[in-house]
Amino acid sequence: MTRQLPLLALLLLLTGVAHAQNDLTLKTRAYRQQHEHQLLDEFQGLLAIPNVVYDTVNIRRTGAYIADMLRKRGIEPKLLDAKTPGVPPAVYGEVRVPGAKQTVIFYAHYDGQPVNPNQWADGLKPFEPSLYTQALDAGGQPIPFPKAGEPFDPNWRIYGRSTSDDKAGVFAILSAYDALRQMNVKPTVNLKFFFEGEEEAGSVHLGEILDKHKALLSSDLWIICDGPVHQTGRKQVLFGVRGDVNMELKVFASKRPLHSGHYGNWAPNPALMLARLLTSMKDEDGNVLIKGFYDDVTPLSESEKQALARIPPVDEQLRQELGFGQAEGGGKSLAELLMRPSLNINGFASANVGKLATNIIPTSATAALDLRLVLGNDPQRQVQTVIDHVKAQGYYVTQNESITDEERAKYPRIARIIAKSGYRAQRTPLDLPIAQTVVKAVQSTAKEPIVVQPSLGGSLPLYLFDQILHTPTITVPIANHDNNQHAENENLRLQNLWDALETYVALMRL
Amino acid sequence: MTRQLPLLALLLLLTGVAHAQNDLTLKTRAYRQQHEHQLLDEFQGLLAIPNVVYDTVNIRRTGAYIADMLRKRGIEPKLLDAKTPGVPPAVYGEVRVPGAKQTVIFYAHYDGQPVNPNQWADGLKPFEPSLYTQALDAGGQPIPFPKAGEPFDPNWRIYGRSTSDDKAGVFAILSAYDALRQMNVKPTVNLKFFFEGEEEAGSVHLGEILDKHKALLSSDLWIICDGPVHQTGRKQVLFGVRGDVNMELKVFASKRPLHSGHYGNWAPNPALMLARLLTSMKDEDGNVLIKGFYDDVTPLSESEKQALARIPPVDEQLRQELGFGQAEGGGKSLAELLMRPSLNINGFASANVGKLATNIIPTSATAALDLRLVLGNDPQRQVQTVIDHVKAQGYYVTQNESITDEERAKYPRIARIIAKSGYRAQRTPLDLPIAQTVVKAVQSTAKEPIVVQPSLGGSLPLYLFDQILHTPTITVPIANHDNNQHAENENLRLQNLWDALETYVALMRL
Repeated sequence: MTRQLPLLALLLLLTGVAHAQNDLTLKTRAYRQQHEHQLLDEFQGLLAIPNVVYDTVNIRRTGAYIADMLRKRGIEPKLLDAKTPGVPPAVYGEVRVPGAKQTVIFYAHYDGQPVNPNQWADGLKPFEPSLYTQALDAGGQPIPFPKAGEPFDPNWRIYGRSTSDDKAGVFAILSAYDALRQMNVKPTVNLKFFFEGEEEAGSVHLGEILDKHKALLSSDLWIICDGPVHQTGRKQVLFGVRGDVNMELKVFASKRPLHSGHYGNWAPNPALMLARLLTSMKDEDGNVLIKGFYDDVTPLSESEKQALARIPPVDEQLRQELGFGQAEGGGKSLAELLMRPSLNINGFASANVGKLATNIIPTSATAALDLRLVLGNDPQRQVQTVIDHVKAQGYYVTQNESITDEERAKYPRIARIIAKSGYRAQRTPLDLPIAQTVVKAVQSTAKEPIVVQPSLGGSLPLYLFDQILHTPTITVPIANHDNNQHAENENLRLQNLWDALETYVALMRL
Repeated sequence: MTRQLPLLALLLLLTGVAHAQNDLTLKTRAYRQQHEHQLLDEFQGLLAIPNVVYDTVNIRRTGAYIADMLRKRGIEPKLLDAKTPGVPPAVYGEVRVPGAKQTVIFYAHYDGQPVNPNQWADGLKPFEPSLYTQALDAGGQPIPFPKAGEPFDPNWRIYGRSTSDDKAGVFAILSAYDALRQMNVKPTVNLKFFFEGEEEAGSVHLGEILDKHKALLSSDLWIICDGPVHQTGRKQVLFGVRGDVNMELKVFASKRPLHSGHYGNWAPNPALMLARLLTSMKDEDGNVLIKGFYDDVTPLSESEKQALARIPPVDEQLRQELGFGQAEGGGKSLAELLMRPSLNINGFASANVGKLATNIIPTSATAALDLRLVLGNDPQRQVQTVIDHVKAQGYYVTQNESITDEERAKYPRIARIIAKSGYRAQRTPLDLPIAQTVVKAVQSTAKEPIVVQPSLGGSLPLYLFDQILHTPTITVPIANHDNNQHAENENLRLQNLWDALETYVALMRL
């Protein structure tokens, strides 16, 4: 354990000062340079197993592969099940370190978001990992995996589902432990490993797993390996996450598709109805207009505000890189906006466009939405604000799959809203002593000042660790920020994987 | 030729009076009752050939099948090509009738709208015609095609692409001629047959075909067999059609899909941008708010207004049948609203919904639109009003497939608008003598008063016949109104096919 500095001093120390990378980092680097082929062989094997969270058969195959990875490292794996049968188990393992006074659990998840292979670039298959000379949209070209003895370029990228989110996390943690073993360096804390298999479905049963295996999962800290490093390329440490809840909003019109010539001007158009509904929810600046949407927000603490103010601005660089002209938020910074709850349209579908388009008036229109939550927001209360808003626009709102003739006869406008259970946001206070230890450990591996954020914009069910295990969580992400996480063409830059190894070696020597 | 009544007297005569079906109609009915199996065998063969308008190989197979149908009836088919090579040819045939003073060309089209087989009901395949006891949404059950000697129920429906639009038209025309032959009844006019193969693509080359084969196609009248009978179930005669032009409107945001947690609240959401754009185009009553959209409309003539006033109201019955609560149009009738230009959203797509939905901010959003045009509207001028509107909302509008980095850097909002060429509306004056003859012929086959409409809501490129051949057109549709034309689960009610046979026999004895 390192001596503690007051938080503000530490934050200042992280700003704009050149840092030295410590010996362990350099040693880890040398080890990695000698083992790149072995490392990538094992990673490719992991990536090749389909892991869409709803694909229960392959999810279990993925879990079994990870259990084997633990065994290879001399750790006896356990599969931690939930009370509910059939839930993908968490894969668990532990390493007791003689003399260690603290225990750290390392978390990553091995399931992935759904894939629509048609939307992936030509030549890319979600579960056939492939190597490219750089990012596709920067002109990256495919390249075969090099043979033994041939070098890797650290700017190459591996494409495939979960290359970054979050098999990279699983792999970085287990490879860091392996590096320590091979280098004969002892961890300074007891290590536990916990790999979840249901995160992308909203971690519906994680609470049950934590509750059922409470004794086994006792620790002083959870370190969460998920998400991207800062857009500047600097490493970052995150003290919280937004919560999230998914909704589907569907608007119904005619029971059957209608010829747009014979009925256009008279039959209601569900795509337009849904467009009007969505438009009513946000203003031109992206502010949510739904009544009560911002009511429950817990304000930032003073130290959170200070940390926020120190995050390097990336908005203009990012806007150019992403190629859009105008951000939402009326001029507020990205870092600031991520501290607010948000309402996102993830997708919109009504009949067909392109080659399949026909001259009809569709029967329904559907929007997939996700609401990001901040501290203070309750998922169901937030969903209710949206339902109330839709009702206030003159809609009858149901949760039923099909609409009855009676409902159709009775209500001029009908919407179906289905919300998943979702989960709350979580924030660990920046002032905890162990928090500062983690920040210093990560900084010891980096030349540039690392970024400390009160919260990730993304979501993880970290509130559960707090609520059930009363244990703080800190997130140390590793992926490149342009990894296309959750979407087609997901990828990982090799250098990010190499950096991750050094980071996680340091985190096992807190 | 029949003696002419003044138009108003004829229209009055058609209102609310019981009519007798004439001998020819009864004779045709008896003939049909004896030949139902033969008729449906031939129709099934026609339906089984895929005819999506863009599927050039199968379109030609469909044309060849129709050419064979002509041959079987003792008519030597001609394939009429366009100046542009590779265009699906029109299939043509003619029957000279000794002593006949007039010539009527019968038109139908043999191509069909695109199909998305996934959207069709379980058990239905677009090009495997299948029989159901009634409409699917009324609880229709599949039933095998009856064996020789077993009866058909006239309420049964055949499901498949183009069962109604418009292979039914091709088939009704050729079967009516066949019936006359078999019954040894001579047509009273020279007959020409013209079956188009590119209607559902907007009849892009029909003008070329008409122009190239002008001499062959001389006539006194074109009778168009396409579209549905009136929603009351009564037969109808239509004196015009709306024009149509298809557009695609695509809005661009970030170059790559973004994680909705890490970027939600800041990155612009293209689905919301497009929703806002579409919402700005129409008010709550469905009135188009685009500047100039209604400017060019030619007012209805007095006799058109009279005909319009006599159309039986169906709005309330239809609204209930279609199961929606509130029509567009602020209380105006369907018949009245179809005399206005319209802007329809045919489809909307942005990323994914349902099982494929992921927590992202999409990169783009696309809407398929069609603009229905009335007399006076020019397709390109109407498209321009939409483009100007989008520009007025702050968009840079391009037609290019891909957006350059320079464009992305320069313009805060970017939309791509691609419009097809489209075509104008057409209306034949109700007062023409031959028009009245047609109305009387159709009425002679029906017990109930037929409906006379100044214009169909749907579209056909009838302005070309006027412009190139200087020949009037009258449309006599045959399909059931609930045929799902252009959409999934397209179908034809058998009784409509039987009625069509009687109608078209009468139209060959004007």
